[in-house]
Amino acid sequence: MKKIGILGTGIVGKTIGSKLIQLGYEVKMGSRTATNEKAIAWAKANGNKALTGTFADVATFDEIVFNCTKGEVTLEVFKQAGIENFDGKTIIDISNPLDFSQGMPPILAPQYSNSNSLGEEVQKLLPNAYVVKTLNIVNCEVMVEATKSGGVPTMFVCGNNADAKEAVQGILNQFGWTDIMDLGDISTARGTEMMLPIWLRIYLSTQNGYFGFKVIR
Amino acid sequence: MKKIGILGTGIVGKTIGSKLIQLGYEVKMGSRTATNEKAIAWAKANGNKALTGTFADVATFDEIVFNCTKGEVTLEVFKQAGIENFDGKTIIDISNPLDFSQGMPPILAPQYSNSNSLGEEVQKLLPNAYVVKTLNIVNCEVMVEATKSGGVPTMFVCGNNADAKEAVQGILNQFGWTDIMDLGDISTARGTEMMLPIWLRIYLSTQNGYFGFKVIR
Repeated sequence: MKKIGILGTGIVGKTIGSKLIQLGYEVKMGSRTATNEKAIAWAKANGNKALTGTFADVATFDEIVFNCTKGEVTLEVFKQAGIENFDGKTIIDISNPLDFSQGMPPILAPQYSNSNSLGEEVQKLLPNAYVVKTLNIVNCEVMVEATKSGGVPTMFVCGNNADAKEAVQGILNQFGWTDIMDLGDISTARGTEMMLPIWLRIYLSTQNGYFGFKVIR
Repeated sequence: MKKIGILGTGIVGKTIGSKLIQLGYEVKMGSRTATNEKAIAWAKANGNKALTGTFADVATFDEIVFNCTKGEVTLEVFKQAGIENFDGKTIIDISNPLDFSQGMPPILAPQYSNSNSLGEEVQKLLPNAYVVKTLNIVNCEVMVEATKSGGVPTMFVCGNNADAKEAVQGILNQFGWTDIMDLGDISTARGTEMMLPIWLRIYLSTQNGYFGFKVIR
């Protein structure tokens, strides 16, 4: 059985983890402590088919790790998990550098946007990992079932390693994403992370979070 | 005949102006001087059905003005045209705050993005005008003929005045935009201007500028 690790016990981590279990993957969810109540409750809700552990346990679990942590803690989580533990691993980075310090809707953290991105910062922190930015432009239910948007939107992948992007595209296909565009290296994550402001305005004006963006071309 | 003014003599201004003439509008194109060669050549190419003049001539021409200037000069152009000349006018603002100082692809000017937008700055500069941000997320040929993208993408409108947005939507319909989303007040232009980075990455990875974004919902 293929094994995938999940960093983060929030709604994104739980939704991705549950979907992966449904798809037949062996899943380990990591948090700051091995006894995190949210992670254990989630594993129980999934019939105890899921495993839980620390961030480091997840880093050493197998070859693919989903980063489902909030952008504000992402870099710290990777440090806690142990930089070297990610050598040779594929990191599916869903995080967004949202900055709520100025109220709602959030802005993007200035140091991680425009001429930089959180995806690039993760890659810099983990130089021997293969970081692939994707899925960060839709809500978590649409992430794991693209058609919940009401159709099949486009999904982007950004990353430096072609094999890693191909492996990620296989998982995206299992999530229902059939229109996938490879934008290029990890610096192209600047483009996808900067879609969060339009996502937020559409959500605020329609009060509907079940949507996605199709590139008509 | 309905009259529309155009600020800017670049490819965007010429494309919008020519389309408006085809649609039967009387069009005046404005530039820094009344004898701008590019504007006069464009008018001649349109069978001299178009008028040309200064920015101020365009501001006082009639009720609707397209801002087709480059973002880096937009605010200066409005000042040159005379702030009060825009009182009560509808400004269709297509400009983007692109900053080429760090090379290609451009970033967004930090002072006009993220927690601000160029659309908001135009509205602040022209407090008695009705600024509507739209069309800035596609290339100029797609702007005036939505189906040149290969389908019918979504177009956003952002602005404080409902009547102005309705008037603009009428023109957008004439350009082939049948799926229009009103995002709210002019501050929502932050969302649409921040789509330029993903536009640029899609263009750079596909070498195709004829595309648009459909909100699947």
